[in-house]
Amino acid sequence: MRFLVTNDDGIYAEGIRVLIETLSELGEVYIAAPNQERSGVGHAITVNRPLRIEKLSIFPGIKEAYMMDGTPADCVKLAIEAMELEVDFVVSGINNGANLGTDVFYSGTVAAAFEGALQSIPSIALSLCKKSAVDQGLYQTAAQCLQEVLAKIQAAEIKGLLNINVPNISYEQIKGFKTTKLGVGRYKNEFEKRLDPRGKPYYWMKGIKYEPDNPEEDDYRAVEHGFVSITPLQVDMTNYEQLKSLKAIFS
Amino acid sequence: MRFLVTNDDGIYAEGIRVLIETLSELGEVYIAAPNQERSGVGHAITVNRPLRIEKLSIFPGIKEAYMMDGTPADCVKLAIEAMELEVDFVVSGINNGANLGTDVFYSGTVAAAFEGALQSIPSIALSLCKKSAVDQGLYQTAAQCLQEVLAKIQAAEIKGLLNINVPNISYEQIKGFKTTKLGVGRYKNEFEKRLDPRGKPYYWMKGIKYEPDNPEEDDYRAVEHGFVSITPLQVDMTNYEQLKSLKAIFS
Repeated sequence: MRFLVTNDDGIYAEGIRVLIETLSELGEVYIAAPNQERSGVGHAITVNRPLRIEKLSIFPGIKEAYMMDGTPADCVKLAIEAMELEVDFVVSGINNGANLGTDVFYSGTVAAAFEGALQSIPSIALSLCKKSAVDQGLYQTAAQCLQEVLAKIQAAEIKGLLNINVPNISYEQIKGFKTTKLGVGRYKNEFEKRLDPRGKPYYWMKGIKYEPDNPEEDDYRAVEHGFVSITPLQVDMTNYEQLKSLKAIFS
Repeated sequence: MRFLVTNDDGIYAEGIRVLIETLSELGEVYIAAPNQERSGVGHAITVNRPLRIEKLSIFPGIKEAYMMDGTPADCVKLAIEAMELEVDFVVSGINNGANLGTDVFYSGTVAAAFEGALQSIPSIALSLCKKSAVDQGLYQTAAQCLQEVLAKIQAAEIKGLLNINVPNISYEQIKGFKTTKLGVGRYKNEFEKRLDPRGKPYYWMKGIKYEPDNPEEDDYRAVEHGFVSITPLQVDMTNYEQLKSLKAIFS
């Protein structure tokens, strides 16, 4: 198995280091990751300036490691299209924080996996659901869970795009795996207004508050109750249901 | 009708000016747009630095106009959540270039409309399918087509998220409207490798090449043949089909 590893916390983050170690035991690892934190960049790509690629040798036992000055989606694109790496799996993470429900729209981690899927490569986004970005992270738990998921989906020959969220607890405390849908409840990003020393206002985006719409089987609920959440995502965003009613009007 | 207008080409772009003029004839217009071009930013949001908002008075007859130093998704979030604007519609555009097929993942224009939909507001992304970014744009064509679409969907009480692409031809040459699915054929972003004056390589991302998978009713084909393409999008990216097979493995 050849894995392409990336993330949105930057190539020096703890989560990607644990991921690299874990996948190295299972196959060949290639790395293409951003040179700095790119959280919240979503599926941004860089079109208005050129991109730089630096080959690194700091990761022992790795086939090829590239540090790039772009977004996570840029990294996957460059790895596949410019570096012409051939891999069987894209794994993005281990993210320092959850990527649940509508987070998937904003997350660079998930976007990198989406980009893998758009390139027709089975892809996984793996996130550790820490309470805050500065909390201690039990990345080994996520790594062990990933190994189990990989074994199961490979045995069943399941391909596609999976969004996996792991509670930030010890492996022994994990209650099991739950396949889930994305929570689509209405959420709110509060903004905090502050004044700069000159009295002009500026606005900080705060965390996401979740109001469950159908909590019994969604990803938020699974993680809250100590389960690993596995959500399969699709890359066709057409709303086929509504397409029918629109056809009636515009034909 | 109260419209929130935004875009990803920046508040000074020609497309948004035409859009503002058009919607002013139909109702009240609020503007919240980026202070510079933010093409390709996808659904990026700004979490690592605070955001600035500047109230502008350069647009005559507009209820409120705000210029923001964030992404298109930031602009919609700030308008709704920080400025607490109450609107009936978010309209994003008129984009300088097509947003077809997998473009919807990368497009700031579409992401702004997605953000409106996530805020439970009916939203439209409107793009003009120019051959290149520097070609002359017939924005009035897109504006006239938008008026027709708005009239029809309001009469039918259709709400949701629409991705509209208009050929860059005169209104008289438009063949009609087609409701379409997103083209999901495999595409390729080629990179162009160049050397800087010091001999170090850098990489430019080039345009998207399209290989149709089911051309007869997708958005690319519609525009290619002179039709306005209207694609309804969904905000739940769960792959329910695959969820069934995964459940069997993980239960």
